[in-house]
Amino acid sequence: MAEEHHHQQLQQVLILRPPPVYTAFQDEFSKKFQVLKAYESPLPTDLFLTTQAHSVKAILCSGHSPVTADILRHLPALQLVATASAGVNHIDLPECRRRGIAITNAGTVFSEDVADLAIGLLIDVLRQISAANRFVRGGLWPTVGDYPLGSTLGGKQVGIVGLGSIGSEVAKRLEALGCIISYNSRKKKPSVSYPFYPNVIELAANCNVLVICCELNDQTRHMINRDVMLALGKDGIIVNIGRGVIIDEKDLVQCLVQGEIAGAGLDVFENEPNVPKELFALDNVVMSPHMAAFTEESFFDAYQLVVANLEAFFSNKPLVSPVINE
Amino acid sequence: MAEEHHHQQLQQVLILRPPPVYTAFQDEFSKKFQVLKAYESPLPTDLFLTTQAHSVKAILCSGHSPVTADILRHLPALQLVATASAGVNHIDLPECRRRGIAITNAGTVFSEDVADLAIGLLIDVLRQISAANRFVRGGLWPTVGDYPLGSTLGGKQVGIVGLGSIGSEVAKRLEALGCIISYNSRKKKPSVSYPFYPNVIELAANCNVLVICCELNDQTRHMINRDVMLALGKDGIIVNIGRGVIIDEKDLVQCLVQGEIAGAGLDVFENEPNVPKELFALDNVVMSPHMAAFTEESFFDAYQLVVANLEAFFSNKPLVSPVINE
Repeated sequence: MAEEHHHQQLQQVLILRPPPVYTAFQDEFSKKFQVLKAYESPLPTDLFLTTQAHSVKAILCSGHSPVTADILRHLPALQLVATASAGVNHIDLPECRRRGIAITNAGTVFSEDVADLAIGLLIDVLRQISAANRFVRGGLWPTVGDYPLGSTLGGKQVGIVGLGSIGSEVAKRLEALGCIISYNSRKKKPSVSYPFYPNVIELAANCNVLVICCELNDQTRHMINRDVMLALGKDGIIVNIGRGVIIDEKDLVQCLVQGEIAGAGLDVFENEPNVPKELFALDNVVMSPHMAAFTEESFFDAYQLVVANLEAFFSNKPLVSPVINE
Repeated sequence: MAEEHHHQQLQQVLILRPPPVYTAFQDEFSKKFQVLKAYESPLPTDLFLTTQAHSVKAILCSGHSPVTADILRHLPALQLVATASAGVNHIDLPECRRRGIAITNAGTVFSEDVADLAIGLLIDVLRQISAANRFVRGGLWPTVGDYPLGSTLGGKQVGIVGLGSIGSEVAKRLEALGCIISYNSRKKKPSVSYPFYPNVIELAANCNVLVICCELNDQTRHMINRDVMLALGKDGIIVNIGRGVIIDEKDLVQCLVQGEIAGAGLDVFENEPNVPKELFALDNVVMSPHMAAFTEESFFDAYQLVVANLEAFFSNKPLVSPVINE
């Protein structure tokens, strides 16, 4: 194609909004692909797509740049959606399936870092680290004196909601830290010896802590609601490193404000980057800005995987981390 | 003795300043012992000791109520110093040895909680959790956008300084979390397979992280100085859950402010409860107010151990957790 020859025969990759993994390595990326940057164009997105991206075969996206049916409609030549995230809930899967568009994701490159953040958030909530840090930085130690007692990690009954790649890494870590693991997922996993609860309310009723690790889909949307929180109880803690909307955030805020659960460690929220203001007043809530996957090491791994998938696609080789979309 | 009969024959225990473990359980404690509360008396301590505690045989203390030679001089009948802490650096050991005064401590009841806090502080510094929490609470997410990248825990070379009860628990946890462990201590431990460095500078030079777990004594005071920090290097992180003065705090502040090391997680400080103000401006420093042992679970265990030691002492049975003072 003439255009590719003009650009040193680099293949075109469309980006609507730059994924953080791309931003971290855009110089290297630009040497490998001709990037169509919709986000730098003064044109409205649909006009940009119609005029500039009509022949583009591959798009790179991530959680905060959705690939909707409307976007797909403007991309008649599209054959690959490569997302730099593990989750694919921002991609219109049925429409991709209908059109035979392949999808690749970040596979499991983020799983260990995400699991580590879950552990960090849980220890932080149990031991009140962020709140203690505010206490020291606020100069309160000399005047107030001893800090209130926290709660021991070891011996806690922890329920893992969603025992996939991330959930398994969380379970492995917490087991090593002396916690007692059980889990809920769509189906009991034959190879796993942790107790299985088919019902998340039953899991909650038998646990001190829930760690939300499942993917977002129609079954898991608002699955963690007031009933689950009441079953967890007033000494219970919720950690969410999945997706914000898996928890009913209104219920969560109410339960936290009213002391119906003991605390929460939250990396994800329903309406990111907006966070319910009521949570800002609570010392027993630790919040981070959807950064569980944000390390230099895993971003480099994710970048390499994105490139490997795109290069495989453009050279008609098998994709490295295809998403099964059936 | 007349006084004891008057108090329902409860044995006397002197407290100069209430240890947190005592405060948490003082009602129960008062049913078992007659507590001489120097801290509630209007008398100066030495006058209180001379007039009220002349015949007292046991004193209960902790890290922030030192038992000095001067205190001991006013207590001619003293036979037991029971500390509710693991460390005994606040007790004049040579003077106790000279007078044959026994010492009991909290044994290992705090070791797992202290190790958990070390893990929490390390993950917090590597993944910037407390700083991210400030970022979210400060309302910066919607305006600033994506948070800076952290650093992966797995694969880090971690040097444990002091492989006693706490250090071993820290090593066990970090090994399970994918770190590569080595250690420094007075002597190589024959039963331990982690690489041993007899010199802490060499340990630092071969590590990304140092976790300070040793006891405070003349050999360890200011052992972690500028030379050690420069050997650790500008990507290095220090976690201190031992005693503040094991680190040269002026050197630490200077290295952090000048970026000569990458960050620190500090539960202890040289002049508690005072913390160097320069640290308050640094996002890469996480501070907690000497609370590594502060959980409901371990406080209950420590309370029970204190009572068991005092009861053993007063009934001439072997002490439960005696400190060897040779």
